[in-house]
Amino acid sequence: MNAHLLTIGDELLIGQTTNTNAAWLGERLSRLGVQVERTVTVGDDPDTMRDELGRAVRQARLTVLTGGLGPTHDDVTRQVLADYFEAPLRTDDEILDRIRRYYERRGRQMPRSAPALAQVPEGFETLDNPVGAAVGLWFSGTLEGADRLVAVLPGIPQEMNGIFESAVEPRLRAEEDVHAVAHRTLVTSGIGESALQERLGDLSDLLGEELGLAYLPSTSGVRLRLTATNGDTAAAQNQLDRLEARIRERAGAHVIGTGDAELEEVLGRRLRAAGRTIASAESATGGLIGHRLTGVSGSSAYYEGSVVAYANRIKRSVLGVRADAIEEHGAVSEPVALQMAGGVREALDVDVGVATTGIAGPTGGTEEKPVGTVWLGYADGVGARAVRRQFVEDRTLNKELFATAALDLVRRRLEERTDEDDWIPR
Amino acid sequence: MNAHLLTIGDELLIGQTTNTNAAWLGERLSRLGVQVERTVTVGDDPDTMRDELGRAVRQARLTVLTGGLGPTHDDVTRQVLADYFEAPLRTDDEILDRIRRYYERRGRQMPRSAPALAQVPEGFETLDNPVGAAVGLWFSGTLEGADRLVAVLPGIPQEMNGIFESAVEPRLRAEEDVHAVAHRTLVTSGIGESALQERLGDLSDLLGEELGLAYLPSTSGVRLRLTATNGDTAAAQNQLDRLEARIRERAGAHVIGTGDAELEEVLGRRLRAAGRTIASAESATGGLIGHRLTGVSGSSAYYEGSVVAYANRIKRSVLGVRADAIEEHGAVSEPVALQMAGGVREALDVDVGVATTGIAGPTGGTEEKPVGTVWLGYADGVGARAVRRQFVEDRTLNKELFATAALDLVRRRLEERTDEDDWIPR
Repeated sequence: MNAHLLTIGDELLIGQTTNTNAAWLGERLSRLGVQVERTVTVGDDPDTMRDELGRAVRQARLTVLTGGLGPTHDDVTRQVLADYFEAPLRTDDEILDRIRRYYERRGRQMPRSAPALAQVPEGFETLDNPVGAAVGLWFSGTLEGADRLVAVLPGIPQEMNGIFESAVEPRLRAEEDVHAVAHRTLVTSGIGESALQERLGDLSDLLGEELGLAYLPSTSGVRLRLTATNGDTAAAQNQLDRLEARIRERAGAHVIGTGDAELEEVLGRRLRAAGRTIASAESATGGLIGHRLTGVSGSSAYYEGSVVAYANRIKRSVLGVRADAIEEHGAVSEPVALQMAGGVREALDVDVGVATTGIAGPTGGTEEKPVGTVWLGYADGVGARAVRRQFVEDRTLNKELFATAALDLVRRRLEERTDEDDWIPR
Repeated sequence: MNAHLLTIGDELLIGQTTNTNAAWLGERLSRLGVQVERTVTVGDDPDTMRDELGRAVRQARLTVLTGGLGPTHDDVTRQVLADYFEAPLRTDDEILDRIRRYYERRGRQMPRSAPALAQVPEGFETLDNPVGAAVGLWFSGTLEGADRLVAVLPGIPQEMNGIFESAVEPRLRAEEDVHAVAHRTLVTSGIGESALQERLGDLSDLLGEELGLAYLPSTSGVRLRLTATNGDTAAAQNQLDRLEARIRERAGAHVIGTGDAELEEVLGRRLRAAGRTIASAESATGGLIGHRLTGVSGSSAYYEGSVVAYANRIKRSVLGVRADAIEEHGAVSEPVALQMAGGVREALDVDVGVATTGIAGPTGGTEEKPVGTVWLGYADGVGARAVRRQFVEDRTLNKELFATAALDLVRRRLEERTDEDDWIPR
């Protein structure tokens, strides 16, 4: 099945809003095995919209249109559908009732423009909105001699996503020409894209027409997207299993989970399972490790607190770093990272201390310790250790990469997967 | 002048990459007064690209095409241009030399595919790339009987932005039918969109056809975009001046700067100018205040450190919060916020202490203190004070909004702009 997307909105054309709907729909449709061939964005002008709708419907079996479904005068999508499909608008009383109740439940007056939301072009089904008041619309039938599907969704991302997942996706799966592609995502951490590629080595005996592997890097790690194109079958699952097994065999210590696993969550579960508490001593990351750990709901079960010691005197006064260590080796050094990790463990009375001291940039680099250098420290009841890593030249990226590396260090200590090799900077 | 954008790339269609280029170009072109009427994304297929290029050129005076300019076999843009314009590709020796030097300077071998980057269709000018190796292309001439402009840019955002700013924008400004729109952005903080709208009140004596005002909200504040449409003239500047003066008169304490001013930077400059140092005591924000303050290069001049006291016992042991205050009023309370701010000021020996204690959610809310409740504390040599604010239901948003509110509290204390009214929750 091929598809064209039509996203409506002046705010998209003038760059006030980035078109995340097109990316989200592109990803979801591709996963279903639907080929997105074109995305078009136009403004709220009815004539232009009708032209583009006609062009999409002529060329694609599926057209997904987003935006312009609200109640204001800019929202002309319903009228355009009525014109193009020669399908008069009628008020759907059930929907009008639902909209009325939606506002009642929230204790708000129904806006005078709300009844427009209950207007449906003849021949269209309505699609329930699990999130907001506007419903989606669905057409399935013959247009200009061909079988056509048209999904019409609100432009607000949460509403669009909700209706797509609950109502559009099931309808598409029921179509004969949708042969779902089977996907699996392995989430890795603590290793860069090229180092990971080297580790995985030659995979040509597994990869090919029917099985693909994509590297999706971000500051929190590289996600590996495995795709089997011969449908969602037992054979496809078997192919994915074999590829996953190979990846885990070669880079197992770096695979932290599947799907949308996140390092902070995986680490949180480990800490919770082990009944251990954690605190961070941060210099270069400035509080980001604490911020990321507390991004997980329920983190108070294991995360106790942090000391951000940006000034060296605070490294000494609160964390007990020795002045001679800083003088002799500099603040960005192995002994300071070790003493910070041990110091926060004692100062905040926790099981595990993790520390960062580095040069995020853009200034402060030297030949010996260029921008992007970081020492990471780890301390627990058994002992302490520090590792040096070298990252990039950008301050914002470095802070994220330092924090990710520190969190990953703790994860691997907890999993006891810290073979020497893993400690080598990427 | 009207414009169509044509963004090329399979990664955009399958949602692996969000189309930020379209938004960036849309914003830049709108600012120049160019009307972007349509954005089209298609994959790397030459036939489809040629069709879409033809359609854009027929309908728009300016076509901006991005992507497909690299050296690999997926990069077919040059060939498509050569076919559509019937303009054979020739190798530009000067560019080839420059590409060779580009790799030499970086100590890297020139890839065997690099000479493709020096191929230029006849009739096109080349546009220098201040960032990377690929040059841009520019056509200005008659096509199908009409005056047409075509800009062809790489898909990598930094390169696209660099070439647009240095080479495309000046060429567009020189065109007779580009009448630049005059813009001004006022950055506000510590006030929500609707509260700000109320404060500004009726502006209809100033606003109209020639002068517009847009609210652009984010978690770090609401930006106000002022637009004068009658060209970049003295009269337009005068209109903008009058509107800016009115806004400052009515919401002055909330206006923190113009252009791309950010709260952390504005606050940093204030602290530096006053010769004061700062530290944060964070509970609900988990380190985010420290993270945001240290996002600014040079922040070590005034930011000393933070104590993240997620566990109540750390509020007591490190920050000296009294146990009876927590027992009697709860951790999210005025006395605890005050004692945290004063405590971190003493513990880290700084001039200004700022504190957050709140309920980010999704759990932990009560009827009296629902999710989104935060107490912010401030302490300096003169005294301490705390304010309660109420935000939203989302954990991630709340952490950002709590941090923004805390930073803004400090800014206004330093600017001595804390009339009682400002302390009322939005």
